[in-house]
Amino acid sequence: MENETTIRRLKTIEGHLRGVIRMVEEDAYCIDVIRQIQAVDAALNKVSTQILENHLNSCVITAIQGNDKKERQRVLKEITEVFEMSAKV
Amino acid sequence: MENETTIRRLKTIEGHLRGVIRMVEEDAYCIDVIRQIQAVDAALNKVSTQILENHLNSCVITAIQGNDKKERQRVLKEITEVFEMSAKV
Amino acid sequence: MENETTIRRLKTIEGHLRGVIRMVEEDAYCIDVIRQIQAVDAALNKVSTQILENHLNSCVITAIQGNDKKERQRVLKEITEVFEMSAKV
Amino acid sequence: MENETTIRRLKTIEGHLRGVIRMVEEDAYCIDVIRQIQAVDAALNKVSTQILENHLNSCVITAIQGNDKKERQRVLKEITEVFEMSAKV
Repeated sequence: MENETTIRRLKTIEGHLRGVIRMVEEDAYCIDVIRQIQAVDAALNKVSTQILENHLNSCVITAIQGNDKKERQRVLKEITEVFEMSAKV
Repeated sequence: MENETTIRRLKTIEGHLRGVIRMVEEDAYCIDVIRQIQAVDAALNKVSTQILENHLNSCVITAIQGNDKKERQRVLKEITEVFEMSAKV
Repeated sequence: MENETTIRRLKTIEGHLRGVIRMVEEDAYCIDVIRQIQAVDAALNKVSTQILENHLNSCVITAIQGNDKKERQRVLKEITEVFEMSAKV
Repeated sequence: MENETTIRRLKTIEGHLRGVIRMVEEDAYCIDVIRQIQAVDAALNKVSTQILENHLNSCVITAIQGNDKKERQRVLKEITEVFEMSAKV
């Protein structure tokens, strides 16, 4: 169910991106193209956030409540990593 | 010619994004999906930079060397705006 | 102990920022100033990541292993929020 | 004059950053510290944008209207570089 929302949003973004390609093909004004790419970027960030939210409320809870300390550390490490990366892209 | 490079890159990114959708459809691990979305983001930023570079070396030079002061201001204002936005997405 | 590392890093960044102010006072080249501000930004992101890592390995584990469901949701919601924001700044 | 605005803003941000250090010293809640660091980040981005705007309206105009083609290219290259970096920090 959550996956369906994610897929639907990503397909919308794919459509948006195809629109950007068309703009370039039709020689649209550079700045307008950059703005549309930035809009695609912002939409992707929202999807990432939604996926992270689902992840926290499922896998992360399971791992932290479980008995496998290594698994717990792995799961928390991953969150730190995607957080760090999100500040860079 | 420059447009062709841009179009080619954007189509590669579109393929990448379709791969991300497939990952979600096949129930891939959340964190892997987020990482791929971040990779798409990074690739889009590179394309934006390339488009800005072309823009600076064409429209911006023309506008600044031209006699229309308003046009000059408009063109410079746009660069400031996309710069500001790029820090946010 | 972890706080001491954070404080030390933030004080280094504060020194860096004072250096940037001095550059502007001494009329340094704009682009050099922007680059130094971007370096300060990158350093701040690293500190945020480190703080988040500590937070995940303390408060978040405690909350998720605890019995208070509301508290658990609150703690996870916050992570989602700072993740979303980190993509914007 | 423009420098004075920049200096004033940077000093405000320095004060903000000192406040963040104090928060950590007083053992403030991790997420609150991260949010304040993100606010400092956002404020720095605004200053960068303002500096870029001044730069475009002075050095860049001079370089592009001048006869030195190399200088022109250098100045435009720099803008591309700080734009690319701004998407990363």
